[in-house]
Amino acid sequence: MNISKQDCIAWDQADPLRDYRNRFIIEPGQIYLDGNSLGVLPAHTSKKIENTIQYEWGVDLIKSWNKAGWFELAGKLGDRMGELVGAAPDQIVVCDNTTINLFKAIHGALGINRQRNKIIAHKGDFPTDLYIIEGAAANAGREIQIELVEDETTICDHFSDQVAVAILSHVNYKTGALMDMEEITRRAHAAGVLVVWDLCHSAGALAVELDKCHVDFAVGCSYKYLNGGPGAPAFIYAAKQHHATMTQPLSGWWSHANPFDFSHQYVPANGIKRMLSGTQPILSLCGVSTGLDTFHGIQMDEVRKKSMALCQLFIDLVTQRCGNYGLEIIGPIHAEQRGSHVSVAFEQGYSVVQAMIEQGVTGDFRAPNLMRFGFTPLYIGYEQVWNAIEVLGDCLQREVWKDEKYDRRSLVT
Amino acid sequence: MNISKQDCIAWDQADPLRDYRNRFIIEPGQIYLDGNSLGVLPAHTSKKIENTIQYEWGVDLIKSWNKAGWFELAGKLGDRMGELVGAAPDQIVVCDNTTINLFKAIHGALGINRQRNKIIAHKGDFPTDLYIIEGAAANAGREIQIELVEDETTICDHFSDQVAVAILSHVNYKTGALMDMEEITRRAHAAGVLVVWDLCHSAGALAVELDKCHVDFAVGCSYKYLNGGPGAPAFIYAAKQHHATMTQPLSGWWSHANPFDFSHQYVPANGIKRMLSGTQPILSLCGVSTGLDTFHGIQMDEVRKKSMALCQLFIDLVTQRCGNYGLEIIGPIHAEQRGSHVSVAFEQGYSVVQAMIEQGVTGDFRAPNLMRFGFTPLYIGYEQVWNAIEVLGDCLQREVWKDEKYDRRSLVT
Repeated sequence: MNISKQDCIAWDQADPLRDYRNRFIIEPGQIYLDGNSLGVLPAHTSKKIENTIQYEWGVDLIKSWNKAGWFELAGKLGDRMGELVGAAPDQIVVCDNTTINLFKAIHGALGINRQRNKIIAHKGDFPTDLYIIEGAAANAGREIQIELVEDETTICDHFSDQVAVAILSHVNYKTGALMDMEEITRRAHAAGVLVVWDLCHSAGALAVELDKCHVDFAVGCSYKYLNGGPGAPAFIYAAKQHHATMTQPLSGWWSHANPFDFSHQYVPANGIKRMLSGTQPILSLCGVSTGLDTFHGIQMDEVRKKSMALCQLFIDLVTQRCGNYGLEIIGPIHAEQRGSHVSVAFEQGYSVVQAMIEQGVTGDFRAPNLMRFGFTPLYIGYEQVWNAIEVLGDCLQREVWKDEKYDRRSLVT
Repeated sequence: MNISKQDCIAWDQADPLRDYRNRFIIEPGQIYLDGNSLGVLPAHTSKKIENTIQYEWGVDLIKSWNKAGWFELAGKLGDRMGELVGAAPDQIVVCDNTTINLFKAIHGALGINRQRNKIIAHKGDFPTDLYIIEGAAANAGREIQIELVEDETTICDHFSDQVAVAILSHVNYKTGALMDMEEITRRAHAAGVLVVWDLCHSAGALAVELDKCHVDFAVGCSYKYLNGGPGAPAFIYAAKQHHATMTQPLSGWWSHANPFDFSHQYVPANGIKRMLSGTQPILSLCGVSTGLDTFHGIQMDEVRKKSMALCQLFIDLVTQRCGNYGLEIIGPIHAEQRGSHVSVAFEQGYSVVQAMIEQGVTGDFRAPNLMRFGFTPLYIGYEQVWNAIEVLGDCLQREVWKDEKYDRRSLVT
């Protein structure tokens, strides 16, 4: 059944989320399909950060640590984050970056499951996750074996009484494949395995249910679907039942039970504050705050519904419009089984992405041959997906890769 | 010899740094003696960050990682930081916070000096330094003994062939005492001990000479004398000769030799990038950039000269004006032996500090009884010190601690 541009326009008109696009500043004519890498600018961010700079910093200065609540911001934002990822209060802090938070979470899990000496992860996971697993394992104080599983769908088969912790991405950064958090966590626990979930590509894109899935630890970034701004601080979740037993070696004063006693001996805070370390970057934390604001009043179920519809539309239109060029959709064909982005393998993908950007459609490229497109339900519409496919089809037809100017590799994170 | 207000006014008129006050936004009538805790707002910060938000983020979005140089910012700011602390290029990155950078530096030093199993530090050092020493020691992969020295002036007596590394603050956060970096580092090296210097209270306040003193590792924050803004990222220095052998366990993708190859195995970068970890908060890094701008064209020797003069003036005026109230100057009496702040012990110090703040003179309080005043040469003048002492004297004379409203403790970092 053919999809028409009119269908897309009609879907936009019926879209309950369509007006939320006004919460952001988006260049006219631009179709930004890279919100899975860096979310767009919320309309009120600039004013809020300006206020923090001019008044909280400029006028109130040191007083703002209390008066403006800077010192409590990591926890307050954590609780707000919890509303989006299904965590009751006092289990999340917003701080540091995903890498460092993963280090703490892995250390915490290895300490709790100290009679086991194996870490499981998916070989195709985002590199920094694999790298920090190496770092955490090498510094665990005992011999830890790392097993990287090739096929993530078999991950549960690798659970055993040797495995201390599995580190898994809820949504894969390349393929977009969505893992079944509830079922995998259940099977992990049945084998005595703790689980650390990386939510970088799912928080803000779909309804995450950390408490309901009995997740042990989770981390995620705030600059993708959560629109917190470039490099904005990440978050770390630790389920309440682990608070008393978890430890982490980045034992700075923000994680101390009584930081302003200035005692010379470290006593870890009770609760999630134990996962803090040192002083946090307040201006960037303000960005997280305004990013979270953009979800005000929005049901994550609606977000998920639209996200699936956008992804499915893109996949269907690739087939319908670009079926003759040898493109290959990577990962699941059904939107229910993926997050909110779609990667397409194509040998000359790099050139195609560059040429599309020039025509106002921004995706990104992941070596060796993946064109990656993200569909952020709060500000992307159905007609935009149609138009993006038109541009993709045009670039393929024109064989843009024969043009030298699209040949130089550039870095896109 | 009595000092008069006229003397102070004359010193201001002769001050070669006096016009640099215009580089900052300072509330009229305020005497801010807490720049050693949170530096004031540079005049151009707001505009610069607004530009980063509106154009680099809002318009260019993901392209800015290259186009605006975000991905290289940690190293570029590091080189600029190096100009202020005497480090040749490619030895500093600006990233994370002091606590986390200390963890990396200690780990690096313990790895290089792996046949030794002792860490030395000063018991009176800033708590987060002591806490993270505990964390790093407990996770070093071997038994590490921590020796906390009571009297920092005897630190060199504790160097031995058992000691792997000494972690020392260039300027003590309480007493203001300045350690002899060159001599202590020389004696440490003579004993085979590596040194990690914490520059939080000296970077931007005096002429630090890391390369010249043959320092191994150093860390410092950017939000005090460097005016980078609340919680702005810190820096870490590693001397070139250690780059090939140092390791650190926070092995994220930013420290990878080829982060955009997305390989699944960690290969540390050559050079100082090895000390990076994950993605950095760009808005807060912009604050560091504008903070460093405020030192443009300024000789650190001039800064030091004025810093000593301001501190000495304060000490002398405390004696001259407040000699009858039992105040005790903590730490060295001579400004040559201290950094740029002065702490005064007084039983009712908390109340006095609160009452002074109400009269427009901001210092801070450190438990149990220290009133702490910082003298930032770029924006504090001699007459301001005179006026601050007038307010101090007035508060003492009025016995403000008898007023209940000054009694509630508040947190000041």
